[in-house]
Amino acid sequence: MVFDLIMGWPASGGLVERSTRQAHSRAATICHFRKTILKDQNAMHAYRTHTCGALTIADAGNEVRVSGWVHRKRDHGDLVFIDLRDHYGMVQIVTEVDGPVFQVIEGLRAESVVTVTGKVVARAKEAVNPNLPTGEIEIRALDAAVLSAAADLPLPVAGEQDYPEDIRLRYRFLDLRRETLHANIVKRTKIISDMRRRMEGAGFTEYSTPILTASSPEGARDFLVPSRIHPGKFYALPQAPQQYKQLLMVAGFDRYFQIAPCFRDEDPRADRLPGEFYQLDLEMSFVTQEDVWNTMEPVIAQVFEAFADGKPVTPAGSFPRIPHAEAMLKYGSDKPDLRNPIIIQDVTDHFVGSGFGIFASLVDGGARIRAIPAPGAGAGSRKFFDDMNVWARGEGYSGLGYINIKDGVPGGPIAKNHGPEATARLIEALGLGPNDGVFFAAGKESQAAKLAGLARIRVGESLDLIDKDRFELCWIVDFPFYEYDEDTKSIDFAHNPFSMPQGGLEALESQDPLTINAYQYDMVCNGYEIASGSIRNQSPDLMVKAFELVGLSKADVEERFGGLYRAFQYGAPPHGGMAAGVDRIVMLLCGAQNLREITLFPMNQRAEDLLMGAPSAAEFKQLRELHVRVVEPQAKN
Amino acid sequence: MVFDLIMGWPASGGLVERSTRQAHSRAATICHFRKTILKDQNAMHAYRTHTCGALTIADAGNEVRVSGWVHRKRDHGDLVFIDLRDHYGMVQIVTEVDGPVFQVIEGLRAESVVTVTGKVVARAKEAVNPNLPTGEIEIRALDAAVLSAAADLPLPVAGEQDYPEDIRLRYRFLDLRRETLHANIVKRTKIISDMRRRMEGAGFTEYSTPILTASSPEGARDFLVPSRIHPGKFYALPQAPQQYKQLLMVAGFDRYFQIAPCFRDEDPRADRLPGEFYQLDLEMSFVTQEDVWNTMEPVIAQVFEAFADGKPVTPAGSFPRIPHAEAMLKYGSDKPDLRNPIIIQDVTDHFVGSGFGIFASLVDGGARIRAIPAPGAGAGSRKFFDDMNVWARGEGYSGLGYINIKDGVPGGPIAKNHGPEATARLIEALGLGPNDGVFFAAGKESQAAKLAGLARIRVGESLDLIDKDRFELCWIVDFPFYEYDEDTKSIDFAHNPFSMPQGGLEALESQDPLTINAYQYDMVCNGYEIASGSIRNQSPDLMVKAFELVGLSKADVEERFGGLYRAFQYGAPPHGGMAAGVDRIVMLLCGAQNLREITLFPMNQRAEDLLMGAPSAAEFKQLRELHVRVVEPQAKN
Repeated sequence: MVFDLIMGWPASGGLVERSTRQAHSRAATICHFRKTILKDQNAMHAYRTHTCGALTIADAGNEVRVSGWVHRKRDHGDLVFIDLRDHYGMVQIVTEVDGPVFQVIEGLRAESVVTVTGKVVARAKEAVNPNLPTGEIEIRALDAAVLSAAADLPLPVAGEQDYPEDIRLRYRFLDLRRETLHANIVKRTKIISDMRRRMEGAGFTEYSTPILTASSPEGARDFLVPSRIHPGKFYALPQAPQQYKQLLMVAGFDRYFQIAPCFRDEDPRADRLPGEFYQLDLEMSFVTQEDVWNTMEPVIAQVFEAFADGKPVTPAGSFPRIPHAEAMLKYGSDKPDLRNPIIIQDVTDHFVGSGFGIFASLVDGGARIRAIPAPGAGAGSRKFFDDMNVWARGEGYSGLGYINIKDGVPGGPIAKNHGPEATARLIEALGLGPNDGVFFAAGKESQAAKLAGLARIRVGESLDLIDKDRFELCWIVDFPFYEYDEDTKSIDFAHNPFSMPQGGLEALESQDPLTINAYQYDMVCNGYEIASGSIRNQSPDLMVKAFELVGLSKADVEERFGGLYRAFQYGAPPHGGMAAGVDRIVMLLCGAQNLREITLFPMNQRAEDLLMGAPSAAEFKQLRELHVRVVEPQAKN
Repeated sequence: MVFDLIMGWPASGGLVERSTRQAHSRAATICHFRKTILKDQNAMHAYRTHTCGALTIADAGNEVRVSGWVHRKRDHGDLVFIDLRDHYGMVQIVTEVDGPVFQVIEGLRAESVVTVTGKVVARAKEAVNPNLPTGEIEIRALDAAVLSAAADLPLPVAGEQDYPEDIRLRYRFLDLRRETLHANIVKRTKIISDMRRRMEGAGFTEYSTPILTASSPEGARDFLVPSRIHPGKFYALPQAPQQYKQLLMVAGFDRYFQIAPCFRDEDPRADRLPGEFYQLDLEMSFVTQEDVWNTMEPVIAQVFEAFADGKPVTPAGSFPRIPHAEAMLKYGSDKPDLRNPIIIQDVTDHFVGSGFGIFASLVDGGARIRAIPAPGAGAGSRKFFDDMNVWARGEGYSGLGYINIKDGVPGGPIAKNHGPEATARLIEALGLGPNDGVFFAAGKESQAAKLAGLARIRVGESLDLIDKDRFELCWIVDFPFYEYDEDTKSIDFAHNPFSMPQGGLEALESQDPLTINAYQYDMVCNGYEIASGSIRNQSPDLMVKAFELVGLSKADVEERFGGLYRAFQYGAPPHGGMAAGVDRIVMLLCGAQNLREITLFPMNQRAEDLLMGAPSAAEFKQLRELHVRVVEPQAKN
């Protein structure tokens, strides 16, 4: 109890933040307390009376003890200064070069751990550091003890200069001491804690679902775990707790959530670390999709607001709800960055029989033409337009047509061939100004949409139209239930096979499958999908029919999703939910570009933990117990 | 938003609890609100305006909609009553046998899911059910819709009669609807949420550590995960985040905690489910063991108090701190049940040269004699003493001597042979009363202690001395660092090899290893170890020396614990912590006897998930990708 009182741990954890008045009043208490106990020096805590971030001018005159890492040593003639660092902050220690304390720390390398006992003194006015909470004081060292001497550092901590990733990962315990990464990790923990609190505030309960389980149907590759007791059989790590959360609803629970570890054995991607990742997973019973949206919009908006460092966030209650088809038309993407003001338009009809023969014949063959306005670009150089064209070809498209309007005069080959009147009509329809430009993406609808979407991003970035300092959130809704797979020449589920098709059994039985939408939705922020969800199909008959359309029999359904299918026979409530990508949200809020900058102990791109040495060879005895043998890959000839 | 307003979700989640005044005022708001919207029937939510537990007499006269499971149907002549159940509670529906609603639900089996729209009416006084929050009202059904018809139930929900475990696990989604299990799971989630809140309140931050990692040194069997990218190599699932949490401290974080999933591939035990379990894991920097105790005592005591249903709990600040050696003497166990008032005493000296030849010669040979008082037992029958003796033999011991005192007269063979004066001295030393009994356990110190401990439990239970309705918490401290392994005839770590030996390097270099204690402690409740922890050995030299004494070289240390050993070279703070068994604590607080009664989706004793069908055979393609082949166990000849 004494320890807690002296330390003055903040109730919220983390760095001590408090007003001067509070600090003063607390310091007075500590001061009084310490007068009492310091008669006996032994009463001082072995390692610290204060954390390194806790001391202020109100502590001046007190004898204190701090422990931490030697961040920097600076020699100023006969005085030596040490920046002593711990999790909570930094404090300056000062000692004479010829004093006893200096002798203790003299030969120490940076990052050694020491305990320093000394007197808090006010710094001279010109030495005050206003950027440091402890910047008004320093500690005159009276005594010091080395708790742990550091060897030569493979990776410096102070200064944070760039270092090769394999060194950073092998010495992650040093890397994590660096200011930015340390702060990112702390922010991550606070974001997750805040999510939890808000979910509980919204009436949700956190349930943990099993990690050793059966293959899940997410379609990615499973991590397998050989069973010792059942030779030849394997557990799988969950790709997501999808089936379990649905089973929870069938089991009569309600408003489930979980900060859920998920596992996919996929080849590394820029936006996913190998191995494990975390989702804010949730499910609700007796809801429509509007209920899910109305419940989760405040949670996510408020999490963003709490950690956006003052940047504007789309307020809860005003997230646009954009049908998938509209998003593909207007933004050429199902994860549009709404900070980008450009809206794509379909101008196919304008090119029916156009003098610009390429487009006319493309349209004749069923192609679509999409227009991507480039506001103000017409006043600039032609090079911008040509570069865009080159870029499009580099992406594998046949090119991007364009019109550049300069002082009201449309230029470029399309304008010329399309003819002045038709061009004027086109420009008017697009609402272009006298110095705007516009690009055209032509092709099959999906291709034209995709190219237009990429061009929209590139034009927005090139023309600096995107306000980076805001978070624009929206819902994309009414996703198609099925899609046509060009490879297999068959239809397949576009997203989640467990989603409820709009129109139900009747739609499945009578409608062209490719026109059926699902009660399926994504939440998107600044061009990133941050969450995905749906109302689930809880009817066994509907489930069988939905799978039948992709060529799977009732027996297949029973074999693959037996637990869930069985559960649906015994009273299943309507239910739905979503899963939000925790790592992605943290990345956005930390402004980090790489998942490793917001992850404690990430694996490298080769799925290796360089710190712990995983994966590693197993002992023969272990493998024998697990009834497996390693098969060396055959040498390639 | 409309939905949330009507539903009146409690901010704290779970069942609605509110005072009548609040309920009334809220009901008035809803009433007004509904007057406005109910002009248009379509404005009513598709599934529910209220949960099944939310309606009270204040809602009488309102038209409402509820959805849930048909818990029971009761036919009372021309009226039919349905108990409709959801996660939040139960409400009574009433309908005429010849009405349209009855026709909808007539053929439905129990556990079907229905939506009922109707009018809330006050029950007749004699029909009020005071045990049900909704017991003052019922809903006169106007309309009903079947959302999901249930098939014949393999397992009844209402009534909770006993059912075979394999059926319960295969149909866990039905089992979980049963009242006790449902309530246990909800209580479990609340306990864990409460732990989190209290840990954060104590300045701790939750960090998630990797689940795909390297073998950990806990000594149990690892679950292995074959690596696809690195043929012949394996990840291991963590037995505990021990190394990671220590690395976090070395990385300069502080006050870590985690509700951590842990994995051990052990043969099933009564107190551990196969596969995974959860720990409240924590670690702190710059602390002594007293700091850990003073920090965690309030957290654990308050969690117990919050969920003990009014049963007394040892208050924070007054947990006894019992040295391991004292616990072994007084309770014959390092996890004593302090509700049992019996204290064991060593009476070896009394039997030096005793007339009771067996004990005299045992003592002569170095044996210890431990006395286990049996208060009041002397007044009872001799059968009790004889039965104890039979029991001890059944446990593999040579027997339990005893003295039974009846009206002040000691009886039995020991008293007779030990002689009246020596017996009187013994009885006085033990402080026995005129109708007490006492048992004697003799043998090598550890054996005598163990038998005495078991006898203490049995005597306490037989004489009904244990107050079951309380939670007695204590610390067991000063555990031995090493122990002698009779099998290998060598010394080994008694518990955690990462603990700090008391006396440090000097003790390791100069003391008999078996006399060295560690800064290692357990927290015990009612005879169960509920937490274990230590101050860690953060000195590389000390670590090497400590392992040397159990026959492991520096190279072994580097190979097995490379990450941690490397980390200790670069500035490691003194640190310590503990891990508490979440499942065990939940079991104690739920009063459950089996872990499956407090676990959502447990595996059976054969480590099978009967609901999801895990483990299961893998496809050949999967195994090929993972570079492993199944080796069928050889048939036993």
